[in-house]
Amino acid sequence: MWFHVNTVVVDKQSPLFEAFGGINNVYLSPGGVAMLKNGRPYPDGTTFVDDIHEFTVKDGSYFEGERKVLAVMVRNTKKYAATGGWGFQAWAAGDPKKPLVTDPVKQCFGCHTQKIAIPRLAEHQYVFSTYIP
Amino acid sequence: MWFHVNTVVVDKQSPLFEAFGGINNVYLSPGGVAMLKNGRPYPDGTTFVDDIHEFTVKDGSYFEGERKVLAVMVRNTKKYAATGGWGFQAWAAGDPKKPLVTDPVKQCFGCHTQKIAIPRLAEHQYVFSTYIP
Repeated sequence: MWFHVNTVVVDKQSPLFEAFGGINNVYLSPGGVAMLKNGRPYPDGTTFVDDIHEFTVKDGSYFEGERKVLAVMVRNTKKYAATGGWGFQAWAAGDPKKPLVTDPVKQCFGCHTQKIAIPRLAEHQYVFSTYIP
Repeated sequence: MWFHVNTVVVDKQSPLFEAFGGINNVYLSPGGVAMLKNGRPYPDGTTFVDDIHEFTVKDGSYFEGERKVLAVMVRNTKKYAATGGWGFQAWAAGDPKKPLVTDPVKQCFGCHTQKIAIPRLAEHQYVFSTYIP
């Protein structure tokens, strides 16, 4: 069963708004949650999906709207060795045939190696999400 | 399979902050999504869960924290006829043995009959959530 990892809302004030603005719901493929909890290596095939939706703000609440982007990280340590063992891709909801990622090192992995959110990010296998009880 | 219905973030400025402040992820029990889509009556046993988590704001993004409250609506048209056919209850994560709802008419159903968000709310069986593609 897919696991709902967490929700992050990237608001207009964020420097990440252009790429990730919206309500981000992150899901993890079946079996992956054990690795998220204990930090052991994700097996090849493990997939994170970030389902990014538009939002509207009314009376101090953020309401989810239509899908904007689907972004994925797919684990394959050999095929994607240059980007930490993850294949990164994303599609705009309005144009799902056209992949948005053409340079995964610059567009994705560059951020996923930054140690802003998690000090020892390489040990977390470049996954920003942590397990939330 | 449970269905992730939507996400609503109730921020400090909201009049609902005291009761629902946080990142609200709403789930619907298996089989219920067809009714959410087509508006037909939810069968008895249908359950909505609102999983409310704390959040922190950093650089214009809202990050999910620990669970604050679990709130549920359980469908039983006879047992809960006084509250639109839904049994309402909630528990604080820190004290899960003590139900928070003692007067479901005042604490819950009063709002679920308000036609602020959805004009024909009775036809929606007092469910605020709508199906988001």
